[in-house]
Amino acid sequence: MTERPDTRPLSATALAEVIATAFLLIAVVGSGIAAQRLCGGNIGLALLVNALATSAALFVIILTIGPISGAHMNPVVTLAAAATGGFEWKAVPSYIVAQIAGAIIGVWIAHGMFDLPVLQISAHVRTGAGQWLAEFVATAGLLGVVWGCLKYETPTAAAAVAAYIGGAYWFTASTSFANPAVTIARAFTDTFAGIRPGDAPGFILAQLAALIVIYPAYRRFSGRSTAI
Amino acid sequence: MTERPDTRPLSATALAEVIATAFLLIAVVGSGIAAQRLCGGNIGLALLVNALATSAALFVIILTIGPISGAHMNPVVTLAAAATGGFEWKAVPSYIVAQIAGAIIGVWIAHGMFDLPVLQISAHVRTGAGQWLAEFVATAGLLGVVWGCLKYETPTAAAAVAAYIGGAYWFTASTSFANPAVTIARAFTDTFAGIRPGDAPGFILAQLAALIVIYPAYRRFSGRSTAI
Amino acid sequence: MTERPDTRPLSATALAEVIATAFLLIAVVGSGIAAQRLCGGNIGLALLVNALATSAALFVIILTIGPISGAHMNPVVTLAAAATGGFEWKAVPSYIVAQIAGAIIGVWIAHGMFDLPVLQISAHVRTGAGQWLAEFVATAGLLGVVWGCLKYETPTAAAAVAAYIGGAYWFTASTSFANPAVTIARAFTDTFAGIRPGDAPGFILAQLAALIVIYPAYRRFSGRSTAI
Amino acid sequence: MTERPDTRPLSATALAEVIATAFLLIAVVGSGIAAQRLCGGNIGLALLVNALATSAALFVIILTIGPISGAHMNPVVTLAAAATGGFEWKAVPSYIVAQIAGAIIGVWIAHGMFDLPVLQISAHVRTGAGQWLAEFVATAGLLGVVWGCLKYETPTAAAAVAAYIGGAYWFTASTSFANPAVTIARAFTDTFAGIRPGDAPGFILAQLAALIVIYPAYRRFSGRSTAI
Repeated sequence: MTERPDTRPLSATALAEVIATAFLLIAVVGSGIAAQRLCGGNIGLALLVNALATSAALFVIILTIGPISGAHMNPVVTLAAAATGGFEWKAVPSYIVAQIAGAIIGVWIAHGMFDLPVLQISAHVRTGAGQWLAEFVATAGLLGVVWGCLKYETPTAAAAVAAYIGGAYWFTASTSFANPAVTIARAFTDTFAGIRPGDAPGFILAQLAALIVIYPAYRRFSGRSTAI
Repeated sequence: MTERPDTRPLSATALAEVIATAFLLIAVVGSGIAAQRLCGGNIGLALLVNALATSAALFVIILTIGPISGAHMNPVVTLAAAATGGFEWKAVPSYIVAQIAGAIIGVWIAHGMFDLPVLQISAHVRTGAGQWLAEFVATAGLLGVVWGCLKYETPTAAAAVAAYIGGAYWFTASTSFANPAVTIARAFTDTFAGIRPGDAPGFILAQLAALIVIYPAYRRFSGRSTAI
Repeated sequence: MTERPDTRPLSATALAEVIATAFLLIAVVGSGIAAQRLCGGNIGLALLVNALATSAALFVIILTIGPISGAHMNPVVTLAAAATGGFEWKAVPSYIVAQIAGAIIGVWIAHGMFDLPVLQISAHVRTGAGQWLAEFVATAGLLGVVWGCLKYETPTAAAAVAAYIGGAYWFTASTSFANPAVTIARAFTDTFAGIRPGDAPGFILAQLAALIVIYPAYRRFSGRSTAI
Repeated sequence: MTERPDTRPLSATALAEVIATAFLLIAVVGSGIAAQRLCGGNIGLALLVNALATSAALFVIILTIGPISGAHMNPVVTLAAAATGGFEWKAVPSYIVAQIAGAIIGVWIAHGMFDLPVLQISAHVRTGAGQWLAEFVATAGLLGVVWGCLKYETPTAAAAVAAYIGGAYWFTASTSFANPAVTIARAFTDTFAGIRPGDAPGFILAQLAALIVIYPAYRRFSGRSTAI
C-alpha cells in the first residue's frame, strides 16, 4: 500500500493523490454537515454518522486508488513510506502538495454540495494537552496499522485503515485527525469537522512527533527484529 | 462485475436484473418507511438506518446476482460497461428496461409489505444546484469505484460498492441516488425515499453528465494510461 | 454451507445445530432486551441495535459452526438443502428438532442472563397481509442468498447471510424472521423480539410458501439453467 | 492466531501483548468516555458507539499484532491456547502479566487523552447471577469463536472476534467483558466502562469457569472428534 508503481509517471500518481484526498475530505466534511443538520442536536449520533461515512470512504478510496498511487492521502504516511524504503524520497514533496491541495478542493466541493459559502475559516476550538496526546496516539496507531498490514492484500489493508480511523473517531479525544493534510484542510471549513487555524499547528506537531517516536518501534518489530 | 456471461440468454440475464433491482428498491424504500416510522422523528437516525440497510442489500445482491447478470441495477453502470468494452451494446436497451421495471416493482412490493397504497407519486422536493452537484459527484465516485474495483474478486467489489453508497448517503447532499432507474422508481413512492417527479430529470441529467465527464479520466488511469 | 460433512455422526452435527441456533436466539432475544432497556424509548435505535447484534452473531456462528453442521439454524434452509441434493433427507428431521430445541434453549438462556422469568409467552401482535408478504419476501431473499452464495468460501457466505438478515430487519415490514424455528422460539419470550403464539403459524406458512415458490426459480438460474 | 512465533524472543512477543492490550483498553475506555459525553444521555446510543469502536479496534489489533504475538490480549485465550497445545506453557505467565499491565496502561492513556485524573477506581456496580451467567456465556462463545476460527486466515479470524465482541456487548447482559485482564483494568476507571473492584472477582471466576466447562466440548468437536 505504501509503494508507488514505477510504471506510471509521478504526475499521474500525484493526480491520483489529489483525487483520493479530495474524496476523503468530501466524506469527512460532507457527512459532518449532513449529520449535524439531520441528527436533531445529538452530537453523539452526528459523530457516529461522521465516523461511519469516513470509514466507508477510506475503504473504497484505498481499494480504488491504492493500486495507482498508494492512496496515502496523508503526509505522515508518505514520509513513513519513504523512511522505510518503500517509497522514493524525491516523490515526497509532490505527494504532500497533492494531498494538501486535494484536501482543500474536497472541502470546497463539500461546501458547494451543501449550498454553503465555498470559502470558510473554522472557529472550532481543538486544543490542549489531552487533544495533543490524542493526536499522538491516533497517528502512532495509524502508522502501526499501515506498517503492520503491509503483509496483507489491498482489501484487507483497506479494511484495517478504515476500521482504525472509524474507531479512532471515538477512542481518541480529538476524533483522530492523524493527518497534516486533513488538518490543514479542515481549518477551511466552519462546520462540524472544522478546526480553528491557530489550533492546527499543535495537531500537526503531535502527528509528526508520533512518526518520529514510532519509527524505531517499527524497526524493532519489523522483519529486521530478529537481527537485533 | 460489468461483464455479461455469454452462456446465458439475454432473457435470463435481463430477468436477473429485474430481480436485483427490485430487491434494491425493496431495501431503499422499505427501510426508509420502517426507519421513519420507528425513529421517533430523528431524521438523522432514520437516514443512518436507510443507508445501512441499502448498503447491506447492495453487498448481498451483487454477491448473489453479480455472477449471473453483473448486477448493474443502474443504467449508468450498464452504459459505462458498454463504453469500456466489457458489455455488448445490443444488450443495453434490455438491461435499462429491466432495471427501470424491476425498480418500480420493488417500490410496489415495499408498499405492499408496509400496508400502504401501491400506487403513489412523491411530493419530496429534491432540487437545486447543490443537489445536482451532489448527484454528479455521487455518480462520478460510483463509476470510479466500479472501474477501480474490476481488478478484484466479486466479494471485494461488492463490499466496495456497498460501502461507497452507504457512505455517500451522507457525504453527498442528495443522499446519493446515482442511478437513473432508482431515481425514476423513487418518484413512485411518497415516503422517506421519494423524489418529486419534476425533480427526477435534474438528477438523471447530473448522473449522465458524470458518466460523460468521468469516462476520459477512466481511460487516463486505466491500463492504457501508460500509452498516453 | 448447506452440506453436512459425512465424516461426523449425525448426533454430532445435530448437536452443533442445537448450539448454533441457541446462540442465534441468545443474540436475537438478548440484544432485543438490552436495546429496549437502554435506548430510552426510541424503538428505531433499539431495532438498529437488535439488527446489528443479530447480524454479527450470524456471521460468527456460520464461520464457527458452518464447517461442522452447515449452521443452517433454519428448517427452511435445511429443507432447501435437501431439495437441491446437497443434504441427505434422512437427516432433515433430526436437524429440525435440533433447531427448534436449540432456539428455545437460547431464549431461556437470554432470559436467565437478563434476570427475567425463564418461561414466558409473547403478547407481541405480528399479523396481517403486509406481515405475511414481508415474511414471504424475507424468506425468498434468504434462500436466494444461500443458493447464490454456495459458490463462495465460507467467510463470504457468512458475511452475505449476516448482511442480508441485518438489512432485512429493516426493509421487510416483519423484521425478517424468515425461519420457522426462530419463529416458534420467539413465541416463548414476552420481550422486544417476541411474537404472539397465535401469529406464529401465519409467519411459518409464509416462510414455507417462499420455499415452494422460489425453488423453481433457483433451478432456472442455477448451473442447470443452460439446459432448459 | 493462538500460536507464538518461535523466531522471536519472548520479551518481544510479550511487549507486543502489552501494546495490543493497551490499545484495546484505549478503545474500550476512550470510546466509552467520548460516547457518554456526546450522546445526550441516551445510554443505548453510547453503548452502540462503545461496541462499534471496540469491535473496530479488535479487528485492527488482531490484524496488526496477531502475526507477532497472537494478539491474545486475554489470559483466558492464552490459557486456552496452552491447553490445546498451540502455545508453550512456560510463556503463559509472561503473557498474563503483559496483558494486565498493558490493559492498565491503556486505561491510563485514555484518561490522559480525555483530561481526566489518571488514577481512578470504579464505582460501577456489575454483580448478580444474571451478570455471572452472561460472563460465562460471553467467554464460552469467545472460546468457541477462537477455536472455531483457527482454520481461517488471520483477516477472517480477526473479523470473527471483532464481530463476536461487538455483538456480545448487546446480547450478553454484562456487555461481555470475557477477559480477566480487561476486567482488572476496567476496575481502574470510574467512567462508562468501569467495574467496581469488588465485582471483578465474580466476573473473572465466571470467565475461568467457561474455560473449564467449554474445553471438553472443544475436544469433542475438534479434528479429534472423529476418533471418538
